[in-house]
Amino acid sequence: MIRKSVQNLTPYTPGEQPKLAKLIKLNTNENAYPPSPKVGQALASLDFERLRLYPDPLCIRIRELLAAEFNCNIDNIFVGNGSDEVLSLATEAFTENDGTIGFFNPSYSLYPVLADIRDAKQVEIPLPASSDELAVLSKNTKLPDLFFLTNPNAPTSTIFSLEAIEEFCKNTDSVVIVDEAYGDFSKQKSATTLINKYPNLLVCRTLSKSYSLAGIRLGYLVGNTELIEALYKIKDSYNVNMLTQVAAIAALEDPEWMKENCKRICATRDRIKQELRNRGWFVAESETNFLWAKPPAPLTAPGVRDALRAEGIIIRYFSQKETAEYIRITIGTDEQMDEMLKVIDNCK
Amino acid sequence: MIRKSVQNLTPYTPGEQPKLAKLIKLNTNENAYPPSPKVGQALASLDFERLRLYPDPLCIRIRELLAAEFNCNIDNIFVGNGSDEVLSLATEAFTENDGTIGFFNPSYSLYPVLADIRDAKQVEIPLPASSDELAVLSKNTKLPDLFFLTNPNAPTSTIFSLEAIEEFCKNTDSVVIVDEAYGDFSKQKSATTLINKYPNLLVCRTLSKSYSLAGIRLGYLVGNTELIEALYKIKDSYNVNMLTQVAAIAALEDPEWMKENCKRICATRDRIKQELRNRGWFVAESETNFLWAKPPAPLTAPGVRDALRAEGIIIRYFSQKETAEYIRITIGTDEQMDEMLKVIDNCK
Repeated sequence: MIRKSVQNLTPYTPGEQPKLAKLIKLNTNENAYPPSPKVGQALASLDFERLRLYPDPLCIRIRELLAAEFNCNIDNIFVGNGSDEVLSLATEAFTENDGTIGFFNPSYSLYPVLADIRDAKQVEIPLPASSDELAVLSKNTKLPDLFFLTNPNAPTSTIFSLEAIEEFCKNTDSVVIVDEAYGDFSKQKSATTLINKYPNLLVCRTLSKSYSLAGIRLGYLVGNTELIEALYKIKDSYNVNMLTQVAAIAALEDPEWMKENCKRICATRDRIKQELRNRGWFVAESETNFLWAKPPAPLTAPGVRDALRAEGIIIRYFSQKETAEYIRITIGTDEQMDEMLKVIDNCK
Repeated sequence: MIRKSVQNLTPYTPGEQPKLAKLIKLNTNENAYPPSPKVGQALASLDFERLRLYPDPLCIRIRELLAAEFNCNIDNIFVGNGSDEVLSLATEAFTENDGTIGFFNPSYSLYPVLADIRDAKQVEIPLPASSDELAVLSKNTKLPDLFFLTNPNAPTSTIFSLEAIEEFCKNTDSVVIVDEAYGDFSKQKSATTLINKYPNLLVCRTLSKSYSLAGIRLGYLVGNTELIEALYKIKDSYNVNMLTQVAAIAALEDPEWMKENCKRICATRDRIKQELRNRGWFVAESETNFLWAKPPAPLTAPGVRDALRAEGIIIRYFSQKETAEYIRITIGTDEQMDEMLKVIDNCK
């Protein structure tokens, strides 16, 4: 009764969502600061009796706001129930049953699971060490039908230049999804500026991180109308509920709030990066709201994880070979980060 | 770049969601009455700053409430972003790539689209004319891998007996999804009472209709743990957002409100059924919040639809051969239904 590939599937493991409110939660790259107060106001002033009705199936108002932001048309924008839904639908729309799905390693650990769910062949490519390496990759390698490229990358926090992304898209017919979940924490221009030049490019973004709205589930794609239309054909009719639409509209109408939060987080990030480096840690450059960090011997990544956990601070640890020496630390408030440093200073 | 089956796909057409608030909207089987005021209270008292966090990926509290209602364990319950997501995931989990998906005709017009999206072979079976016919069907016919059975049926509003459903499930290994979207408007016991006997039976329900919460998107399946677990393996991690969870919990904690609304709607339904019959219409028995009705000559279904539309009343019309002589009328408030009768009485 159950599809064979599903029987054999190892599902994605989301970061822990602990019940204890006292924990300092630096494990799922949530924003340290709350969303715009306008979100709360918009929800509170919604006539709740309207919930008896179906929501706008096409999220028109959200797409109008995004089209204005990215200087494109609403037909260039697909809105989904979080990036998760958007990426999952892309695997349905842009691969045949015997198709191939590719991604870098290390990168977002959801991609191989999405390929497994689609029962597609996975093509894992080692993460290029530089923008120059990325730029030549698609010249020399036949890419899979659909390729996920996180930029800035998670969990490594590094970024490829826009020029390298452009070269990567130029030399392939594969659909390339540039996942800019952390884009607002970077100073680099968004790959959305390239969509008119590359019909195979889709850019995925989310309100979960920079807009402090992981709870509402809103993600979207920006790209060429033909690809966008294909996604609209296969999505659930009412994939984005009314409450999320109300909250998202209010948030998108107040981008200044988001930008202020990003600025604070980036300042904290850069300070903590330096603090850890001063303590002998390797810390990757970061254009995200997290740090990718390797403690100096005799400390070990799992050792630090356990020491932090014992003091009620949770970070993310990925035990695979490529990532086993590192921890991923979401940037919290300054106070939370100082607490973390205190615990680290007591690690032996 | 776009999957062939998607290129050829005709997407599902949801009922119109008009912008004009003045229209009387009897076209998408929304509830005529608002949800429990506790829903509004719960949302208003949510600390909106919490939206920066991811929601509970497993909807534990909702499943606890549903498990209590259906006298089962939370492992017997899958919760999704509306029934739409639940049904779509079922096509992924319970068919191989060369699998088959079946449904009755006429029934919910989403099913063939779901089969097309899955690129599965469709098996359309004429809707049995009676419970007796349903009961023998799976004895005499090899069913497709996954079968959708709406009970009460849409758009015909009729219901099969629980005994017939049981016979139908007993004689097959196929996964049978009994879609009880309208179950709360019926006096019959739910097929959830059969799940311990039939490991191939899943029962789909929703808060969209009886709970007046189409806007929040919450649907769920009740059934055997192995099938439920397969769905959890392939769903998006955070498929149900935090706001929807808060609203759903409040609604499920106040079932009396829902039952009162259902009672009022059923009373209006039975009155209007009689009114239309008095005017010479064929009106099917209904255990739902809508009527399936055929006007007497010289009136025609599309003629009545147009006449109602001209007066700002929209109903649903399906132009396929099997349904072209009927209209589907959602039960509104008594005042709205009387308005409708007035327009019908002026139809020539």
